[in-house]
Amino acid sequence: MNQISLRMRTESEIVARLARVIPSAIGASATARGHPKARRDASGVALGIGDDAAVIRASRGRDWVVSTDAFLEGRHFLARLHPAAAVGYKALARAVSDLAAMGATPRYFLLTLALPAGKAGQWLEDFARGMAGAARVFRMKLIGGDVSRDERVAAAVTVIGEAQRGRVLTRSGGRPGDVLFVSGRLGAAQAGLESFERRGMRALREYSHALDRHLKPIPRLALGCWLAEHRVASAAMDISDGLSTDLARLCTASGVGAEIHAAALPMAGDERPGARRIATARGRAAELRRALDGGEDYELLFSVPRRQVSRVPQNFRGVPLTRIGELTLRRGVRLEVNGRTRALRPGGWEHFGAR
Amino acid sequence: MNQISLRMRTESEIVARLARVIPSAIGASATARGHPKARRDASGVALGIGDDAAVIRASRGRDWVVSTDAFLEGRHFLARLHPAAAVGYKALARAVSDLAAMGATPRYFLLTLALPAGKAGQWLEDFARGMAGAARVFRMKLIGGDVSRDERVAAAVTVIGEAQRGRVLTRSGGRPGDVLFVSGRLGAAQAGLESFERRGMRALREYSHALDRHLKPIPRLALGCWLAEHRVASAAMDISDGLSTDLARLCTASGVGAEIHAAALPMAGDERPGARRIATARGRAAELRRALDGGEDYELLFSVPRRQVSRVPQNFRGVPLTRIGELTLRRGVRLEVNGRTRALRPGGWEHFGAR
Repeated sequence: MNQISLRMRTESEIVARLARVIPSAIGASATARGHPKARRDASGVALGIGDDAAVIRASRGRDWVVSTDAFLEGRHFLARLHPAAAVGYKALARAVSDLAAMGATPRYFLLTLALPAGKAGQWLEDFARGMAGAARVFRMKLIGGDVSRDERVAAAVTVIGEAQRGRVLTRSGGRPGDVLFVSGRLGAAQAGLESFERRGMRALREYSHALDRHLKPIPRLALGCWLAEHRVASAAMDISDGLSTDLARLCTASGVGAEIHAAALPMAGDERPGARRIATARGRAAELRRALDGGEDYELLFSVPRRQVSRVPQNFRGVPLTRIGELTLRRGVRLEVNGRTRALRPGGWEHFGAR
Repeated sequence: MNQISLRMRTESEIVARLARVIPSAIGASATARGHPKARRDASGVALGIGDDAAVIRASRGRDWVVSTDAFLEGRHFLARLHPAAAVGYKALARAVSDLAAMGATPRYFLLTLALPAGKAGQWLEDFARGMAGAARVFRMKLIGGDVSRDERVAAAVTVIGEAQRGRVLTRSGGRPGDVLFVSGRLGAAQAGLESFERRGMRALREYSHALDRHLKPIPRLALGCWLAEHRVASAAMDISDGLSTDLARLCTASGVGAEIHAAALPMAGDERPGARRIATARGRAAELRRALDGGEDYELLFSVPRRQVSRVPQNFRGVPLTRIGELTLRRGVRLEVNGRTRALRPGGWEHFGAR
């Protein structure tokens, strides 16, 4: 495709191009004129992309669940390091993880995208392809967009999911004595980021599970739905900013404290079958730090009342569910290491924090 | 308030601060613990700010109308020029104008905000105050937010409105022969921007209607609702990027063309009672250019079938409604000046255009 003609695209042309590449619900204008996609969009969108706004209609007994997330160059990704397709995928996946945390089923999303003119060509095509891939995996449709030119890439994604009325997972239902679980393994995305920063594009050429977790995180949608529908969890959230930071948030919302056990934490390093255990004390400390403070794992953290614990399987569709501690009456989050308990300070990703 | 302590705020603290200043729907956690605001929020938010996502519930026979808009430093506003309160007001008002264009009633909004650490203090307070003012005027509640640090301010606002099922205004219903109307007067915001750029803060100290239109645009919500509820308009949209650009969009969506008359356009300069008419040909040409291509007026452009035209009042609650032309079978937008008709090229605000 011609780079120069792409640079001359207008905002409307870019939105139209995004809507062609990314699965999207189309406007009433197209419906009225017998557009072939029109019939497939009876799903709840009365009016899709291409008008001033989209119109969505909830089914009986269902609620809409809405969340928004930014994805910024220099903050959430690096232009020199991250492939455009990974940026597109991750910008959506990151927001979708909030829907997983609520036990909602993703349906629609809106995209606000600012980008430099030099990225309106191939970069945009790759970005759209990556986002389209994510939209297909999560079965979502783009219903609105706003594109503007700026010096750096800035995306903001608003996701809309559906949930059975009164059955969403919140952060606030945890009670003292409830058992804490996490899905998957912690610290993988952080390890992937570190290897990517160290080795750059060379890391891309060799398969690495950790790198994959950094570039293509998998929101735990099926697990979130299961926990919500079967009323297993008393509270839940996704771990986007690191366990130490996010657990403190869950505790604050629930009005409780927590104690977790270092030895129980499912480490990213345990994931590879037959993997050599990290042997040095320094290596183990770094691994623990990544599991506690490493962001972007997008695993679910959830609490389960004791009488429900037996209902939690060890594996949910191939994803391990691990008991890591319990909620306590005493406020604050504590970490037990080798029988000693100490306060666990939020050490994760806090944009305006001291870190 | 202490500037240094503000700079050390965490992301969660900033979101919490925004939620205190800006009218917002609170989370279930607060509801559960008998928060005094809880009772007032039976309005359709089952779960507000403070969790992974918000939950909204539509009333019977009502649809949700959703739109998203970016508001970027250096693009939509200038840090050295625009007061933070105006930035906060306008970021929301701009997005709300899309709801007015649909005939929807605003209800909720989500805010994605990136800002430098140096703006996390007084600037943020003023921004929040301006946005709170807008939220009160439009009767909206904040239900979600995401804050991150970046070198420049970037806001993205997603607005959610409510409309009677099947009664929204779209861009696509216009038919040849329908009469075109605009609300208010055109070019005022552009004139305000020009005086602001010329005189900066000095312009702020003297009252100017045009400056007010630039800093505090008024989305035509009541008019949009009236047009939608009474089925007066066949198509409608808001003029955010300039009449020449937006009319072309309405025509494309409706599959028609349009002819408008220069002499009929309601000019910003006519607004001041007893104002001296601009006398020079050059002055009049500049005024016409601003009316055609000046962005950010946020007036409504709508088409009305001929048999409905008598139902359109000359004034709607103090806002003049002016007949400016008609939709045509022949594609393209044309402008008639002194009996001569020429093609009108979109000359408004197009971020990736040749302009």
